[in-house]
Amino acid sequence: MSTSHEYDRADAPADALRLHLNEHTGGCSPRVLEAIRRVSAADVARYQDYGPLHADVAARFGIAADQLLLTNGLDEGLLAAAIAWLRDDHREAIVLEPAFGMYADVVEAVGGTLVRVAPRPDFALDVEAVRAAVTPRTGLLFATSPGNPTGLSLSADEIRALAGLLPPHALLLLDEAYAEFAETSWLDDVRARAGASGVVFPPSIVVGRTFAKAYGLAGLRAGALMGDAATIRRLRRVVPPYSLNVFVVAALTAAMDDTAYTADYIRQTRESKALLYAACDRLGLGYVPSDANFVLVRAGDRRQALLDGLEARGIYVRDRHGQPGCEGCIRITTGLVEHTAQCIAAMEEILCAGA
Amino acid sequence: MSTSHEYDRADAPADALRLHLNEHTGGCSPRVLEAIRRVSAADVARYQDYGPLHADVAARFGIAADQLLLTNGLDEGLLAAAIAWLRDDHREAIVLEPAFGMYADVVEAVGGTLVRVAPRPDFALDVEAVRAAVTPRTGLLFATSPGNPTGLSLSADEIRALAGLLPPHALLLLDEAYAEFAETSWLDDVRARAGASGVVFPPSIVVGRTFAKAYGLAGLRAGALMGDAATIRRLRRVVPPYSLNVFVVAALTAAMDDTAYTADYIRQTRESKALLYAACDRLGLGYVPSDANFVLVRAGDRRQALLDGLEARGIYVRDRHGQPGCEGCIRITTGLVEHTAQCIAAMEEILCAGA
Repeated sequence: MSTSHEYDRADAPADALRLHLNEHTGGCSPRVLEAIRRVSAADVARYQDYGPLHADVAARFGIAADQLLLTNGLDEGLLAAAIAWLRDDHREAIVLEPAFGMYADVVEAVGGTLVRVAPRPDFALDVEAVRAAVTPRTGLLFATSPGNPTGLSLSADEIRALAGLLPPHALLLLDEAYAEFAETSWLDDVRARAGASGVVFPPSIVVGRTFAKAYGLAGLRAGALMGDAATIRRLRRVVPPYSLNVFVVAALTAAMDDTAYTADYIRQTRESKALLYAACDRLGLGYVPSDANFVLVRAGDRRQALLDGLEARGIYVRDRHGQPGCEGCIRITTGLVEHTAQCIAAMEEILCAGA
Repeated sequence: MSTSHEYDRADAPADALRLHLNEHTGGCSPRVLEAIRRVSAADVARYQDYGPLHADVAARFGIAADQLLLTNGLDEGLLAAAIAWLRDDHREAIVLEPAFGMYADVVEAVGGTLVRVAPRPDFALDVEAVRAAVTPRTGLLFATSPGNPTGLSLSADEIRALAGLLPPHALLLLDEAYAEFAETSWLDDVRARAGASGVVFPPSIVVGRTFAKAYGLAGLRAGALMGDAATIRRLRRVVPPYSLNVFVVAALTAAMDDTAYTADYIRQTRESKALLYAACDRLGLGYVPSDANFVLVRAGDRRQALLDGLEARGIYVRDRHGQPGCEGCIRITTGLVEHTAQCIAAMEEILCAGA
């Protein structure tokens, strides 16, 4: 999904320790599997009515049903935003680098023009650089909190500032794919301000969530866009009506209801990050403190040795050297503590081999 | 997915006899369910590598891997064609009425212009009317064989004639969603001409298939586009890289391999159509002889009585009165013989009540 190449799918052998795609390394909740196993042959053969699911999920998020759009993974939601907002005389989309590669892919898919904002060395938001990138042709701005690959969050003030830079016809797509791992989120902030008539979203901001990460459902394909009802209606018109599969319908609320399972995983990601930070300190590697389920490690000239050594041990991490501001960087998923410990032991073995 | 309203999803109660969406009324193969039940919690949590699936499915169709694109239902493929071909100065899409409603929806989703070709009274292809509809701005032509809701097939000569009318930059999307129920198909014809170097597709035609109908996988979401490698590459760039879910990866080839199950269902759809034709003759109702798993019944002024009476008995069929050329028409899925017999008994009861 790019003009010059296929999206880098980064497949790995079946028996690898997968720390390269920020998946839930513990697998989905057993309750999800139980729900999947109740699906019948007749269910599989049917186009699904997911009105009830939609209402259930909206209620769990504390928003109105018309403020929610469920999608076939958040990727489908990103594509929908590009289709619906990059139109006519506003085909420019701003991406804050370093960024998730899919933003560029969906912009190119619909024939839009990508405007990349270069990062500051510390990856902090550069509002003035964004202001300089905005034009009357801007249709869409992608922001991510926590960021990928940095793990850094944007504050509610920063998000409001970004939205304030945009022309009236443009949309800020705030990708909160990793928000469950952070202490707070913009969506939490909006919900906290809810009045008697419920949650009120600014029409120019839509927030993206996914069930792929904290809920362990990457293979199920389920994402969500949340925003003002009119904004959501415009997005719904560009998403096929049966894009969710029967297993999402059967199992998504089971995942959301197993709050103990999700809370334990989030706790483990925090312990994993602390362990990895300590290991980086011991090994003399830099890192970016992360609000997500991964850490961007600055390996510098030891990057290739680490990548090769880890792969030789069946551990897949993500090389991010090619991304703006990420020279010498590797992104490592910090999931179950046992997996993080296994990766840290391998890193120490690799880097201390000649010591 | 329309400018004025949501797509008419036509949901029905869980215990209804569903003869309104041309689903497999017998459910998916038991082998599919077995494959689904082998999916683990770890599998659910992972982004899927579907390279091997892709190669397997291409081999089963007898085409090269680069001539195939698997999609999240054929709907995703239709949207991809609209995104990739309705561009710049060729934003017009021609639809041959009466047609599957999704064509209009994807055209409107990407801001294209819909050009509807009205049907002849007998629904035969009107090549001259299509010729009159083609302009230098034509980007896409949707044709369906067997047609929906008519069930009528286009011959290979007719398909070539349609492709010959198009400007060089335009694409003919030939939707063969129901081709397994017909005696022959355009894809069969193309494969029969394969030489030593394999199957050769004309670059201006892409054929769409689905696993929703003959394979009973509507809820799984799996479709396919097949064509020239360069044409497929252009389509692949506008489809998100992980749009297939883990259950498609686990179970699709199980469905394709259970050829006895599919053959039995196709045999039953033929017996069902013969039974329904005979019932229509007895009841004095017209119908269009169909190559698909449904029949368009001309109920005339008895249409509303039939719709109401069937729904009261828990039998859902599809009102097609609103479609061009389909005044007074109802579309009835002809699946398992026992289901068709149940529908026919109800029709006789309704229409002969006052006799």
